[in-house]
This record gives sequence, structure tokens and C-alpha cells, in this order.
Amino acid sequence: MVGGGQLARMTQPAAVALGVRLKVLAASPEESAAQVVNDPVVADEKSLADLRAFAAGCDVLTFDHEHVPPAHLRALEADGVLVRPGSAALLHAQDKGVMRERLTSLGIPCPRWAVVSGPDDVAAFAAGGEVVLKTTRGGYDGKGVWLVSGDTPAEVVAEPFRAGVPVLAEERVDYARELSAVVARSPHGQAVAYPVVESVQRDGICVEVVAPAPGLSSSLAVEAQRLALTVASSLGVVGVLAVELFETTDGRLLVNELAMRPHNSGHWSIDGAVTSQFENHLRAVLDLPLGSPAARAPYTVMVNVLGGDLPEVYPTYRHIMARDPGLKVHWYGKGVRPGRKVGHVTAYGSDLDDLRERTWHAADYIRGDIDE
Amino acid sequence: MVGGGQLARMTQPAAVALGVRLKVLAASPEESAAQVVNDPVVADEKSLADLRAFAAGCDVLTFDHEHVPPAHLRALEADGVLVRPGSAALLHAQDKGVMRERLTSLGIPCPRWAVVSGPDDVAAFAAGGEVVLKTTRGGYDGKGVWLVSGDTPAEVVAEPFRAGVPVLAEERVDYARELSAVVARSPHGQAVAYPVVESVQRDGICVEVVAPAPGLSSSLAVEAQRLALTVASSLGVVGVLAVELFETTDGRLLVNELAMRPHNSGHWSIDGAVTSQFENHLRAVLDLPLGSPAARAPYTVMVNVLGGDLPEVYPTYRHIMARDPGLKVHWYGKGVRPGRKVGHVTAYGSDLDDLRERTWHAADYIRGDIDE
Repeated sequence: MVGGGQLARMTQPAAVALGVRLKVLAASPEESAAQVVNDPVVADEKSLADLRAFAAGCDVLTFDHEHVPPAHLRALEADGVLVRPGSAALLHAQDKGVMRERLTSLGIPCPRWAVVSGPDDVAAFAAGGEVVLKTTRGGYDGKGVWLVSGDTPAEVVAEPFRAGVPVLAEERVDYARELSAVVARSPHGQAVAYPVVESVQRDGICVEVVAPAPGLSSSLAVEAQRLALTVASSLGVVGVLAVELFETTDGRLLVNELAMRPHNSGHWSIDGAVTSQFENHLRAVLDLPLGSPAARAPYTVMVNVLGGDLPEVYPTYRHIMARDPGLKVHWYGKGVRPGRKVGHVTAYGSDLDDLRERTWHAADYIRGDIDE
Repeated sequence: MVGGGQLARMTQPAAVALGVRLKVLAASPEESAAQVVNDPVVADEKSLADLRAFAAGCDVLTFDHEHVPPAHLRALEADGVLVRPGSAALLHAQDKGVMRERLTSLGIPCPRWAVVSGPDDVAAFAAGGEVVLKTTRGGYDGKGVWLVSGDTPAEVVAEPFRAGVPVLAEERVDYARELSAVVARSPHGQAVAYPVVESVQRDGICVEVVAPAPGLSSSLAVEAQRLALTVASSLGVVGVLAVELFETTDGRLLVNELAMRPHNSGHWSIDGAVTSQFENHLRAVLDLPLGSPAARAPYTVMVNVLGGDLPEVYPTYRHIMARDPGLKVHWYGKGVRPGRKVGHVTAYGSDLDDLRERTWHAADYIRGDIDE
């Protein structure tokens, strides 16, 4: 697995159970995943030579992020390396312009969009309304995203274009909430769909996921799973695919983003599903039969723990464990910085209000926002 | 954790979630746990110098077996190393004579027993009945155990005494089944008790565990948990304690064996309990608050996968995954040898017959005993 973040870290328990030796290419020996695997390789994920050396010790190459340059992936494939998902599929999670073009050609509902080359294009696209601008490559967690309107100062509208990366303009969607449909797909085409979840964002960062999405009609749930399975098979995805969706106020689904790796909206599955997204990602990239994605409880709530003002989390961590013996804590081994994802907590059961109260209390307490 | 077997291996997923860095002292870099932790230490667990060097890099020392010499543990404690469980407690899991003496003094029901020094003592103890002889130290999985009677040839009765280790004689108990009560206890005395399970043995090796023990009366279940909690607190155990019990045909409980570490009879808890025995062992030895030991399903069945005649398990492994997407497989990364524990499978739900059929099918298929 290229990338030493928490996604690779959380893949290790699945590898331990499956009897798979997980190798990790990390940027430093202290990265989240590097702490928990045998012999992590510290190397540069942007260097083809480093990637080639790493791949030589692996049966199959997969990723905990989308940052490996597409040309390097194609070079590895030309070398004969099994790259999963393959470069042709992964490109749609690396370049939002390519993604929009392809989804539209497949008839998948998307927000109105256009690739724009400057402020004049933006104004023409906006036609007086609000527009979301995204760099087509390199953004994550709210970075590389701007909301602009006719009132936005010209220098702000110009900002997305400064990096020299093509910019995608999208209509600002009037959505009721955000959903996520996570699926896993094998090389020979077996696929499983997890229950569709509701994902709550603050400042562009996912903070809460509820599985399944409360009150979602079964027709929309099936439609979201169908969309995700269609994208997975049409693009030839191998591994986990997360399709982030808007549920509009008028009851439609529009695709917001794609990720081709275990995704924050699937972390609930570690404690809440028969087979976690991490295990199914491994099974898929190794072409093993997939495990059941069924939920184990009526509801599972996952809340991200973001770094706050408390540099030392250990005392608060003990408190939340003592308060709630049924809470599942997942710690990423990362230093605390304000706003950084340093862990998550999960609770499951039938009383959604209770699960939300418990998970949010824990996250807020660790962050230092509350002290009792 | 001293010891690189599957117990240390299965502790790693718990460490990953808790944000704990698990260090392992293994006998070889290819041992089960050494494959899945960062920078395993290959050293000799019988060498005090090696243990001292290993302990210098740890906040607390714990074990995946009972084989570290008691004198070494006392020396480490004298050095100031936090050894959990401590040497004084662990001795009761290392020496069956010490264990019987102490349990009897605590009023804990045991089979009739005596430490014997030769065949004449055995004959006197037997008084014409059947006797189980056990070396007081070093036995496991049926090794170091003999069943003798008046008809047993003299050279067989003499065999247990050849190692020069004191021998324990016990009455052969007329039991209906074997149970196990697993508890975890913290240094400050917090303790949790898992549901009491039924454990099925063949040739002295655990092959199946059902949680909770089917049809066990609530009074016997509570009595078994009470016994285990009493032993844990009286002996000052820190970490997981497994108390293996006989349920006699006349409805009594007798203590058979003690283990002070995660135990085969607790593996079901990985998939079947809110908090696995491995996570609670770590929480306990780190003096973190303990997690809920509650079962997540009406029944969980675990079946050990023993090596059979098939040296290569991968093809069968794929088959059992494809046959049963709800089955949880746990692979230990060990080479296959006949009779060796190489993994286990777990299934949970409400239909006990179905769970048994699925888990046994998988284990028998991987072993090569059936081929469809």
C-alpha cells in the first residue's frame, strides 16, 4: 500500500486476520501506518524509482490516497506490476475534470459543471448564481475548493487558477444532506455494496457518519448503490469505491466526489459491518472472494476526532473509555494539530440519539471543547 | 509482549485501534506476530540479558505464553520493569502444583489432587481408579499429560517423572463438558467477565468454542464468573485470566487449568464481543479502563483450523470465503503441519446448528478432510 496514513494503518488489522503481509510505503518512519507494519519502506511516492523498488517486493500495489502521479502508475503497469485500482480507473479519482466527463457520458447524474479557464468563464457559467470552483487535481478535505458568486472579489475568483491546474466549475447544489455509497469490486467483477450512509461535513471535513442514512427511502438507497456499482463496473474499479452524493431538497441524487480506496464514510464498517471496508479492499485487490457488507446493528454512528487545543490526548482518552465501556476508539498515532483527524470513535445500537450523544461527547471531550 | 505466536499477532489489531505501539520479542523474524509488528525483536525469551534489553524499550511487559522463567521475571521486577501479570501471579499459570495449592487454600473447587514423586505415590493416590498425571511445568495442548490406571504398564507410569519436574496427580473427573470463564483485571482492580463458553477438546487440543455455553444454567454461569473473578483478585492477576473448568455430570464446577493471557477459549470475542479479549488484555496491562465484554450475537462459534495433509492452504481458503461471505477467517501466518493450529474461523448469529455447520465445514475443508 502506497501511503502511510490512517487508511493504511486501519488496513493492517484486516491484513493480520487474512494472513496477508501488508507492506507500506510511507513518507516517514513515524507516519500513522509505518508504526504498525513490519519493515515500512520510507520513500517518495512521487519518485518512479522509489515506487519501482517498493513494487518489486509486493504481489499487488494499492493505495491509501490518490497522490501518485498517473504517469508513474502507467509506467508501473508497463513494467508488469499489478496496480489495483489500475491507472485508467484511478485517474477518475485523481482528476475531477476527467471524472465529470466520464460520469456524464455514462448518464450518471452530476451537478451542472464545466471546466473553466479563468474568471470570465466562471461568470459565464454562474449566470448570476453561486458556483463551486475546484482544482481538478490535488484537493482533499475542503482544500482546493472555493465558493464564489457575483459578489466575490475578483482576486478571490482568480485564486483557483493560480496553481496552473485546470479548474472545475459546478453549480452550488441545494442539497438536503450528503450521502455516501461505498462498494468494493474484484478484478473478475464480483461486487458488494455497503448500506448507504449519511455523512455530515463541517468546513469541508467529514465529522459524522450514520449507517444506514436515517430515513432514507429504500428506492433512493437502492438507486445510490446502483449508481456506485455502475461507476465501479464502468470504470473497472478494483478495490473500494466511495461515491459521495448529494441528496437534493427535491429528492434527487447527484454525484459529488469519487474515492477509490477505503474512505472516511466507511470507517463505521470496522465495528458496524460483518466485513470492514478495509478487509474488502484487501480481498478485492488480492482477488479473494468478498465478504458480506451487511450492517451488524440497526445503527452505527462514527464521529471523527479532530485535534483541538489539547496537545496531550491521553488523559481525556482515559476519561472517555471509563465513561463508556461500549464505545470503540480508533487512534491513528498522529500528533495533535487543530483540525487534524487524529482518530475516530464508533458506537452501535438501536437508539440513534443515544449513539450520537455518546460519540459526539467523546469527540468533543478529547478535543477539549467540553470538560465533563 | 514476550512471545511471537498467534496470541501476540491477534493483539496487534487491538493495539492499532488503541494507538498503542506493540513491540514483540519473537524467536524468529518469521514467527506469527513478528510478521505484523514494527521492528520485532528476535531474541531468546529464556535469556535474562535479552529480556532486559527488550524491556528497556517498553513501558510495560506482558506475555503471549507462560514460558519465561519465574526467576527472570522476578529479576526484571527488581530492575523496576512493570511486569503484567506480575511474577507472583503468573507463577500460578506456570506451575500446576503451586496453582492447586493456592486454589485449594482459597476454597476454589478443584479435582482431588496431590503432588507425587513416583509410581508408588501414583498407585496410592489412585486407590484403584484412573489418574491424570501432569508435569507441573511446561505442558500445553495435551503435552505433558498422561492418563493412567492400575492396568497401565509400569514404564508408562514412570514416564512423567523422567523430566525431573514435579508431577501432579489428579482424579479423572467424570465431566459432562468443559467450560471456560475468561475475565480481565486492571492493576487498580477493575474487572470484567466475558460470557462463559463451552470448549470442546480433541486429543487435548481445543477445537471448538461456543459462546455462551449452550443451555448453561444462569446459576452455574454466574458461579463460573465468580470463581474466575475471585481467582483474578486473590492472585492479583493483571490482564486476561482464563479459567478452564469441568462441568461435572452431577452439576458441579471444578477448576481444570489457569492461563494468564489471551486464551483460545476467548478468540470468539474478536468478532463476537463488544471488546475483544486482546483489547481488554492491552487495556488492563496499560491500566486503561476496560471495555464491555458483552456478546454481540445470541451465539458465536469459533472453530480452530488445524493443519492437515494439505501443505498449501490458499486454494481451500478461497473456496471457504466464496462459500460463506459471513464467515470470519483468522489466519496466523504459520506453516502448515498436521495438528498445528494455523488459524481459526468464527460465525455468529442465532441458529447454533447453522453456525456449527458453517464453521466446521470451513475448518474441515481447509484441513483437507472434505473436498466439497
